[in-house]
Amino acid sequence: MKVNLKQEMISIAKNALVAARKLAVLPTKIKNIVLEEMAAALLKEKATILKANKQDILALSGKGKAFIDRLTLNDSRIKQMVDSILEIARLSDPVGQLLRGWQTPNGLKLQKIRVPIGVIAIIYESRPNVTADCIGLCFKSGNSVILRGGSEALKTNLAIYEVLLAVMRRHGIVEGAINLIGTRDRKAIDILLKLNAYIDLVMPRGGEALIKRVVKLSRIPVIKHYKGICHVYVDEWADLNMAQNICFNAKVQRPGVCNAMESMLVHQDVAARFLPGMLKIFKAAGVQVRGCALTQKIVKGVKLATKKDYRTEYLDLVLSVKVVSDLDVAIAHINDYGSHHSDSIVTDNLENATKFTQAVDSACVYVNASTRFTDGQQFGMGAEIGISTDKLHARGPMALEELTTYKYIVMGSGQVRQ
Amino acid sequence: MKVNLKQEMISIAKNALVAARKLAVLPTKIKNIVLEEMAAALLKEKATILKANKQDILALSGKGKAFIDRLTLNDSRIKQMVDSILEIARLSDPVGQLLRGWQTPNGLKLQKIRVPIGVIAIIYESRPNVTADCIGLCFKSGNSVILRGGSEALKTNLAIYEVLLAVMRRHGIVEGAINLIGTRDRKAIDILLKLNAYIDLVMPRGGEALIKRVVKLSRIPVIKHYKGICHVYVDEWADLNMAQNICFNAKVQRPGVCNAMESMLVHQDVAARFLPGMLKIFKAAGVQVRGCALTQKIVKGVKLATKKDYRTEYLDLVLSVKVVSDLDVAIAHINDYGSHHSDSIVTDNLENATKFTQAVDSACVYVNASTRFTDGQQFGMGAEIGISTDKLHARGPMALEELTTYKYIVMGSGQVRQ
Repeated sequence: MKVNLKQEMISIAKNALVAARKLAVLPTKIKNIVLEEMAAALLKEKATILKANKQDILALSGKGKAFIDRLTLNDSRIKQMVDSILEIARLSDPVGQLLRGWQTPNGLKLQKIRVPIGVIAIIYESRPNVTADCIGLCFKSGNSVILRGGSEALKTNLAIYEVLLAVMRRHGIVEGAINLIGTRDRKAIDILLKLNAYIDLVMPRGGEALIKRVVKLSRIPVIKHYKGICHVYVDEWADLNMAQNICFNAKVQRPGVCNAMESMLVHQDVAARFLPGMLKIFKAAGVQVRGCALTQKIVKGVKLATKKDYRTEYLDLVLSVKVVSDLDVAIAHINDYGSHHSDSIVTDNLENATKFTQAVDSACVYVNASTRFTDGQQFGMGAEIGISTDKLHARGPMALEELTTYKYIVMGSGQVRQ
Repeated sequence: MKVNLKQEMISIAKNALVAARKLAVLPTKIKNIVLEEMAAALLKEKATILKANKQDILALSGKGKAFIDRLTLNDSRIKQMVDSILEIARLSDPVGQLLRGWQTPNGLKLQKIRVPIGVIAIIYESRPNVTADCIGLCFKSGNSVILRGGSEALKTNLAIYEVLLAVMRRHGIVEGAINLIGTRDRKAIDILLKLNAYIDLVMPRGGEALIKRVVKLSRIPVIKHYKGICHVYVDEWADLNMAQNICFNAKVQRPGVCNAMESMLVHQDVAARFLPGMLKIFKAAGVQVRGCALTQKIVKGVKLATKKDYRTEYLDLVLSVKVVSDLDVAIAHINDYGSHHSDSIVTDNLENATKFTQAVDSACVYVNASTRFTDGQQFGMGAEIGISTDKLHARGPMALEELTTYKYIVMGSGQVRQ
């Protein structure tokens, strides 16, 4: 008999809620032991995971280089997953943390205490490290997790999940704490998104189409990561060698990810000195450049950038370039065309650096560094459950603390309100 | 010529966004001076405000006592508004606060800094103090605010708004920082809720119907306060005199508000001693009681409570009562039937108190105190912009800190990602 998909999803979500109540009071020591064994198990079962990943990759067809790169696992990426889980084990447990404690004039003692959110659903696309990272982060922060990865990565994700689940079972951790939806049927997502009676938060991680669909269908609160249209602004006071290194790194080091630079802004007074060399290096690296009219004047043969280019997240070796008349224009452009994700200024001028960090309304604002550092692991959070371009609850890379909420515990001795 | 409502709303929202950028960098000192003068102006213009309030009340028809109570202003309630604004002036400015600062191994210096959210819309019903409280809190926290109060309170709200706006203008504070929608046309709300390009957060404050409508129509993130189905649980180890005081206060002191008790749970071992006296006192205060079968056995003439009763926010002198066999049943009932708002246990048993505070999944969990204290002012936050029954971003009373988000400022010296 075919199991009814809706019943199956409800059953998973209900069990996750029951499990969440138990996870919320699981001692830190046990959580850390389980996490350490998860890391060891991932290393031990590496061959199995890589084999599954190979099957997923062989089954692909008609996908670009950046897509394949995101899906591919290798020794070093498995090592990164292992390191993330070990780092999560080492980080302090946010649950039970006293955020603030005070007494009111009438003697009530208030404590604001961190508690887990409850049940968290993650809907993601190709990158399989998300499976391990999210399980590690949700478990440490006392939340149940329901994972729904991309169809193309299903075998890889299942392999990772089975390894981690076996560790949980060995330690008698409540069933329902970690869940992976094993069907490729997209209806599973539609059903999950209606289960606001059991699920507290849904985080879509992937392309814009996925995120828009989740936002539209969800009855559960969503934390979004819409786009990463990240800028580097090369100021008139920039060290142009540093600017070259930063821009090259931000665009080329891993173009398929959200914190890669999509748009480069250059102050008009340094454009003639900076652009020819920079664009030559980009060309050599296979980067297609689309520039404004001023860019075209300085470097011949550059394709004209449209307004749409400046709003496009290429996720590939393509770059839009704009020469700007001053810092204010750069800031206004970033606030208007950007996605409030990660933006950088290269400058030696303190006043400009300060103005840029204050006025650019983005989750992460950089001075003299590549935008590629916007990442939970790079920020010292162990891993990340996602990056928020929303302003509410959490902004930028989200990890353990961002997976918690709080409650007030109020101790009285018979106080009543006057 | 009649001004087009949609154009008017867009214009208000756009101006609010422009103003927000300026408010975000307004010095604390200036904000505090303006707030102090707002408080003084409210006192000075008291007669005007009370006159407008009287007009609103006279125009009412067919509204219950609790409704009229919520709408009514008097000397003491104006004094409360004034005190709230003065308290907001005294509280420290959350904007610019360094939440965390650290350095990564490669020398990046990270700062997590509190910043305003941006533009906040408040859609509320009858209580006119909301107008002053929200203006005070949003202004101090560097946010623009768009207010849309209840039609029944429009004259009162306008009177308060005009007084505060005059102070802002006297100090040359950017126009657009505080806005009150002056039309009774409900379409104004529908239009506002689509303006996610300008408005960052909407908070509906009022009855369930209003909140559901806002959630359904909004493209802007919503922080909700669904219902206040608050419980007091009288434990077997309760001091029954204290329990009587707390239950009476929680139900009767101001029944029309969200933190009033709607449901009283009593341990079976003390029910026979506690209920007869308690219900007699309630009866004398005009409280209608609906109880379970066990309640009916102990006190004759009590109407039977239905399942629906236990899920009802009466906001009036009505109370549901249930005798429970133990603490676990009480906790399960509260987590299932409650609204995760404010729940209290009366007990002298430390173990039970601890278990209750851990297991009850509510924003505010009390031991030996009335639920009526769930309130920004009572918690020492000056006032409140609302109470969240959501788990994300903020939970419980929301005031200055809860009206902020954060950004990461990352200072480098040329770092690129390996």
